[in-house]
Amino acid sequence: MAKRANYPAEVVDLINSLKRLPGVGPRSAERIVIWLLDQKDEPLRNLAESLLLVDRVIQRCGTCGFYSASASSCDLCNDSERDHALLCIVEEAVDIMQLERCGHYTGLYHSLGGRLSPLDNIGPTDLNVGSLTARLREGNVKEVILALGADVEGEATAHFLTEYLGQFEVVITRLAQGLPAGSGLEYADALTIQRALTDRVPLKHDPKQS
Amino acid sequence: MAKRANYPAEVVDLINSLKRLPGVGPRSAERIVIWLLDQKDEPLRNLAESLLLVDRVIQRCGTCGFYSASASSCDLCNDSERDHALLCIVEEAVDIMQLERCGHYTGLYHSLGGRLSPLDNIGPTDLNVGSLTARLREGNVKEVILALGADVEGEATAHFLTEYLGQFEVVITRLAQGLPAGSGLEYADALTIQRALTDRVPLKHDPKQS
Repeated sequence: MAKRANYPAEVVDLINSLKRLPGVGPRSAERIVIWLLDQKDEPLRNLAESLLLVDRVIQRCGTCGFYSASASSCDLCNDSERDHALLCIVEEAVDIMQLERCGHYTGLYHSLGGRLSPLDNIGPTDLNVGSLTARLREGNVKEVILALGADVEGEATAHFLTEYLGQFEVVITRLAQGLPAGSGLEYADALTIQRALTDRVPLKHDPKQS
Repeated sequence: MAKRANYPAEVVDLINSLKRLPGVGPRSAERIVIWLLDQKDEPLRNLAESLLLVDRVIQRCGTCGFYSASASSCDLCNDSERDHALLCIVEEAVDIMQLERCGHYTGLYHSLGGRLSPLDNIGPTDLNVGSLTARLREGNVKEVILALGADVEGEATAHFLTEYLGQFEVVITRLAQGLPAGSGLEYADALTIQRALTDRVPLKHDPKQS
């Protein structure tokens, strides 16, 4: 009985590397490699070069924690048109892009690089709180917005930060919690409705508008 | 109004390269890049090196068309335990792996590198028929199995090959068409049932068993 054939070892290794990526299963890893092998315009080499370039130049901004080609600062922190009195704290650098996509925030950011999670042994010292302290000591920031997840870890992190930031002369706010846009009460869970009630907004005689 | 921030240009380029891959959309491309950036064990460089290695060494076997680290032949063609009298013709090299996975075929393969498709301007001269002719002229092959798709293009290619291979002293067979394993009549379309009827197999007094 002949042994079953397989792809050459180099191809198998590449399939194995690709199937580690998030959202890529064994079948799609194979499909990707076959596609790369069958294209005419050298996508293998181009993709490899893109990867190496990112590997070489991309770091975290030492101030806000966003991805940057420079370790000392990034385009976001250096943008003089942004409101440097407003600082939005997020869990991960990728959350910054989510806020930028909404297009309604013009202040600065600070990525914690995680969130409090006792089960995963992540405590306050594992978060980028030191660099946050340094930024607040400069005294430019007037309001800190906590843009953390609306789950247990996010709430715990918000609680810790509210306590911790008490030492600074800053207003502390957090993102509103309530019904997601485009969805009705029908699809909301009890906790979401409870929070939407708690955070309810006056429509008449709104003190914010007076 | 501050302009919306984006990832550094190198990161954007890598996301764009990844979202070209089959099955990878813009969102998963971004997720993959963020994952690669956040891992500790240098997956960017490792993935790039795997890609470059495949780009450098992998070619098509000049005989059967399967992926190989050598252009002159491959492990499949060189395997003396395989039945060199049996030649299975497939549309694409990747189909060879599908047949190998089933584990019941021990002959050799020949990839056409495509199939007849007048709409895409693919005619007989675009298929690897020349190398097929050369293999059949050697005289070792006794049976040619057409393992082509059960669709219009596959049928057209099978028809063309049956005519063309008439000049050689070989038995020509094709894969059976009928109900897919594990599925009932309930889910089969009319054409599948019609073909299953045409290709029906005797269970008693089977001439194949006599």
